[in-house]
Amino acid sequence: MLNHFKQAVERLKEENRYREFLDISRICGKFPYAINNQNGKKIIVWCSNDYLGAGQNIEAISKAKEALDTYGIGAGGTRNISGNSHILIDLETEIAKLHAKESALSFVSGYVANDATIQTLAKVLPDLVIFSDAKNHASIISGIRNSKAQKEVFRHNDTEHLEELLKKYPTSQPKIIIFEAVYSMDGDFGEIAKIIELAKKYSALTYIDEVHAVGLYGKTGGGLSQEFGLSDQIDIIQGTCAKAFGTIGGYIAGKYEIIDAIRSLASGFIFTTALPPVIAAATISNIRQAQIDDSARKNLHKNVALLKAELAKAGIEIIKNNSHIISVRIGDAAKAKAASKRLLEDFNIYIQHINYPTVAKGDERLRITVTPLHSKEMIEDLALALQKVL
Amino acid sequence: MLNHFKQAVERLKEENRYREFLDISRICGKFPYAINNQNGKKIIVWCSNDYLGAGQNIEAISKAKEALDTYGIGAGGTRNISGNSHILIDLETEIAKLHAKESALSFVSGYVANDATIQTLAKVLPDLVIFSDAKNHASIISGIRNSKAQKEVFRHNDTEHLEELLKKYPTSQPKIIIFEAVYSMDGDFGEIAKIIELAKKYSALTYIDEVHAVGLYGKTGGGLSQEFGLSDQIDIIQGTCAKAFGTIGGYIAGKYEIIDAIRSLASGFIFTTALPPVIAAATISNIRQAQIDDSARKNLHKNVALLKAELAKAGIEIIKNNSHIISVRIGDAAKAKAASKRLLEDFNIYIQHINYPTVAKGDERLRITVTPLHSKEMIEDLALALQKVL
Repeated sequence: MLNHFKQAVERLKEENRYREFLDISRICGKFPYAINNQNGKKIIVWCSNDYLGAGQNIEAISKAKEALDTYGIGAGGTRNISGNSHILIDLETEIAKLHAKESALSFVSGYVANDATIQTLAKVLPDLVIFSDAKNHASIISGIRNSKAQKEVFRHNDTEHLEELLKKYPTSQPKIIIFEAVYSMDGDFGEIAKIIELAKKYSALTYIDEVHAVGLYGKTGGGLSQEFGLSDQIDIIQGTCAKAFGTIGGYIAGKYEIIDAIRSLASGFIFTTALPPVIAAATISNIRQAQIDDSARKNLHKNVALLKAELAKAGIEIIKNNSHIISVRIGDAAKAKAASKRLLEDFNIYIQHINYPTVAKGDERLRITVTPLHSKEMIEDLALALQKVL
Repeated sequence: MLNHFKQAVERLKEENRYREFLDISRICGKFPYAINNQNGKKIIVWCSNDYLGAGQNIEAISKAKEALDTYGIGAGGTRNISGNSHILIDLETEIAKLHAKESALSFVSGYVANDATIQTLAKVLPDLVIFSDAKNHASIISGIRNSKAQKEVFRHNDTEHLEELLKKYPTSQPKIIIFEAVYSMDGDFGEIAKIIELAKKYSALTYIDEVHAVGLYGKTGGGLSQEFGLSDQIDIIQGTCAKAFGTIGGYIAGKYEIIDAIRSLASGFIFTTALPPVIAAATISNIRQAQIDDSARKNLHKNVALLKAELAKAGIEIIKNNSHIISVRIGDAAKAKAASKRLLEDFNIYIQHINYPTVAKGDERLRITVTPLHSKEMIEDLALALQKVL
């Protein structure tokens, strides 16, 4: 049977979408530098989702060490069976506060938060219809598929299409609209205001994935729905601790009754070991930091503007958006891979090429993330390097 | 729609299976003691899955701190996009070595390891039939359901039934038998040898969940399949870092081709942030410890024997098995809850009661886990306390 496994991998190789992970070591305190372990050279990472470099915040690291000394490493069990460390309750309180919601629930990852929550929604809401944006993340798609609920996929950000689909169902039938705040690959914003309007008109719940927005948008880092003053009109906000907050874990936030039902019924939450206190401690520190100090956020957006300007100057076309995600479409798997390889080999610049199925075929690209810790010089050098390899 | 959420929770409350998590704080260096934050009292934890207290190993904590200083907190991205820290490769090398397999792959949790791997097996193996033990864990059930593959559930540990089911399919059709080494609730062993025999006879792959056995059984802690000298005949060994190894994360180990295909195709692996280096560092330390020093394992089994003897002396009936898991069947949800409550309130002993759906209705119980760090006195006190509340 080994042949089937070989063949599956062979197919990926033929399509130029076999993933070879770059072996790196981050260097604490030197973000965005890392070591490329293939040749021992220092590289500049331009594709991390640690958007603010918060994974290396001194305060968070010190809180992590304190937690190690106080509690040890792991949680010791599931939340129900000896793993309900007080610091996890603190983490959920902090998340609820960040989003001005009654309650929050933490998961081991953002992927699991989506997958487990969506499956559970379909258990709780009889005859649920899920309306899902066509560009939703793999974790949302997994949750919807595994929920076995009826689903309607609306064309990306097309609220007219969404309304057509909503109209097909009686008002009394439970509905939920699931969409993202910032779409990870094109970096465009979800149609938050219009979707809320439609949700009200057709009595649907709203579920927003803010993983690429929390910590980065909004007055206190509460994400794009906070930035637009709309978070109180969203029923479920899903987010991550692994990007702007620099650690690991995912969550949902919303009304007490919703969160309590998910907590009580989600298999992917119940039957798994809780997050380690050391992770909770670091995350709380970074979420608090995001709420009291917007300088990292401001510097991020300054650098985004600067990099966009430098790329324009260099004649490099990017996918237009209002976000921090900068994508250069290459449109071919082999070419995207080659560009990424040349950047690494000739310039010690690490930008992972993104191929199908992360993006559609023909949409292969370099996806660039600049952080507050990239210097002006690094930004200028990147534009020059890209000019040479593209 | 909020009513549906309320009603779902109400139903759980009526059935006495609404979970109220005990708010505790572990105390590093004082395992198995913890603080019960409801009243500030020190309690003895008798239900942790940190089976060896490895979550508080001094060496692992020191490695964790070193990793924080060296790499920071989070991984910074998915494995494919800037999150492939060298230390994760080291972790997978260590896991492969532990199980004497060619390759290993780490996941954010044992739940995800099962869920994602099983779904992916069904993608790779055409017309796969999955043969699953009736008492397999929720994560295996989730993986099978979500795989949409054909499934045959055989009666728990009933290899005759398994053979009947295997016979129904042509030899050429891909098959996999999924079972556990140690079943978490009754603590009985899976029929490893017989299942391997049947797998050979009917050309099926074997997949063993060793989460309650790794670190605890086998010469170097490689689990029950190692203990019986059978691990080389198992195709996929799944395990966890969150129990005997005291941290968080799950894994699979097996032949290179199998692991590489799962790595390349499992959505739940690909589209999620990698484990933090700090977690990998602590886990590697604990896995190495398990391989070079069997004293914790030996002391665990000594204490298991001691506790079983003390319980017998006290006339407390337990579910018979050869493992470290000690279950006292209560058979009623309300009574199990009441016993747990009395132990906590009157004796500062924490044993979480286990209700449906973790166990079948009528099988409600107290599940006790003794560790090498429980003293003889604690063990004697526990038997006396149980005598009083049961």
